[in-house]
Amino acid sequence: METPMFKKLALIGLGLIGSSISHIVRKNNLVENISGAAQSEKTRDIALELGLVDEVHSDPAEAVVDADLVILCVPVGANEAIAERIAPNLAKGAILTDVGSVKRDVINLVQPHVPAGVHFIPGHPIAGTEQSGPEAGFAELFEGRWCILTPEESVDAESIEKLKQFWVGCGSFVDIMDARHHDLVLAITSHLPHLIAYNIVGTADDLETVTQSEVIKYSAGGFRDFTRLAASDPIMWRDVCLHNKDAILEMLGRFSEDLASLQRAVRWSDGDALFDLFTRTRNVRKTIIEAGQDISRPDFGRHNSPE
Amino acid sequence: METPMFKKLALIGLGLIGSSISHIVRKNNLVENISGAAQSEKTRDIALELGLVDEVHSDPAEAVVDADLVILCVPVGANEAIAERIAPNLAKGAILTDVGSVKRDVINLVQPHVPAGVHFIPGHPIAGTEQSGPEAGFAELFEGRWCILTPEESVDAESIEKLKQFWVGCGSFVDIMDARHHDLVLAITSHLPHLIAYNIVGTADDLETVTQSEVIKYSAGGFRDFTRLAASDPIMWRDVCLHNKDAILEMLGRFSEDLASLQRAVRWSDGDALFDLFTRTRNVRKTIIEAGQDISRPDFGRHNSPE
Repeated sequence: METPMFKKLALIGLGLIGSSISHIVRKNNLVENISGAAQSEKTRDIALELGLVDEVHSDPAEAVVDADLVILCVPVGANEAIAERIAPNLAKGAILTDVGSVKRDVINLVQPHVPAGVHFIPGHPIAGTEQSGPEAGFAELFEGRWCILTPEESVDAESIEKLKQFWVGCGSFVDIMDARHHDLVLAITSHLPHLIAYNIVGTADDLETVTQSEVIKYSAGGFRDFTRLAASDPIMWRDVCLHNKDAILEMLGRFSEDLASLQRAVRWSDGDALFDLFTRTRNVRKTIIEAGQDISRPDFGRHNSPE
Repeated sequence: METPMFKKLALIGLGLIGSSISHIVRKNNLVENISGAAQSEKTRDIALELGLVDEVHSDPAEAVVDADLVILCVPVGANEAIAERIAPNLAKGAILTDVGSVKRDVINLVQPHVPAGVHFIPGHPIAGTEQSGPEAGFAELFEGRWCILTPEESVDAESIEKLKQFWVGCGSFVDIMDARHHDLVLAITSHLPHLIAYNIVGTADDLETVTQSEVIKYSAGGFRDFTRLAASDPIMWRDVCLHNKDAILEMLGRFSEDLASLQRAVRWSDGDALFDLFTRTRNVRKTIIEAGQDISRPDFGRHNSPE
């Protein structure tokens, strides 16, 4: 039993990410106490009931008192108001971080509220499922996944190292990256895939010639895989789109160009062009499996549950 | 132990689908004997070694002799030449079917070669994984999945019923559908999702600002889910595009229109439009799970294997 790294962790927001952090820090004894804040009374009740937190508050400013680690686990668009609200109560020397999928805008909105002596180190654990809420969390969510930190140059190196070790303690690998580059990388690896998934499910929903029930029944042909992403939290994804607009528009533009070219190959029955694209993309999957970010076992939608 | 439904099954093509059919018909004692045909010597050797077939041939015309059930398990584009080749050897009263993801074009290309007295009933089991080849098959592939038959009006009802019972014996549900409607349904539930997946993986592969290694490392943010579909067999998917062109172009057109509209909502920071789309699509997943075509357990890429 090592000594906990932090005395008091404040989790602002107790959804999938907040509750998963609670599970893993309790399991690995990373903090002494956890206080939590959530807007919804139901979430606060569940958090107490599940033992996710030792104390729970509706006001985030109350939750952060005496905390030496504060993690904002809310949709990106909520960070600024919370930062403003908690600022007066942040303890000197505390580390303040977040888990949002956008970093440049979060820094621009949060940093001005951070008092001197508080170390603001934006973070993003690249892990998630399509489920939300305080009951969706589990201790293994971050295991073997990457967490990206995007501190400004002025931030204290010791605090960065400490937060890095915290995420390592949660089972993650950690990378340090420029915030703007993070937003570009995530636009292609996460934001564009979600937008595409939402879009195709919307297109299918609008058809007059194919019924909704047919789409459902025959979804095992591939459509099913998209509905998982398209079931993700709408507020979280709205905020991502609003706060990473430029990078997302850049990637959408490239995707649409490529799709127009693919459409042309279909229209002109250009079998060679189709075969070339379909062959080239095959290798990418192999590399992802080799990198441990997925497994090679075929997924046909009915794998056994791990319990 | 029931009496087998067929005396001799000829599997023309021994990839994922052909080998899976072999596993399940052996398990459920649906046929007495299996003959197989494959172009590649390696595939033929593996098929014998795994006991997928009792006899194996390079020439499909030899494999179909005395068979009362012949299933073409090859990419859509190969059906016509095989039909022409096997026609003289097809037994009177035999049922000839296929497993292709396109039906109208297959009928147009195969039907002219089918001799009188042979019952041609096009079929499509909507099941698959991203893996290919004779070692990829497994007995459970068709369990709980839909198989669509698209017989022309003139086809003998008794033979349709017999083939239907065969697929039920493989664990599938069976629907009878007009071929053209099948092609439209599959264009949205399967063909468009695959094209989109191939396209986004191609787009990511072409970026100059984000490295390939970054795309791989951070793929758990959503991109990963697309690489699975984009790892599917290139020849199979080239042929699907070439043979279901009209329906695919129709669905691609609708998808692109919707994507342009979504792009506009991002550009103009229209949070309400984004939220509405992201909320609407959430229900579709719920319905798919209720229909038994996927499970609700969150997938974060590292579920345990079923063994």
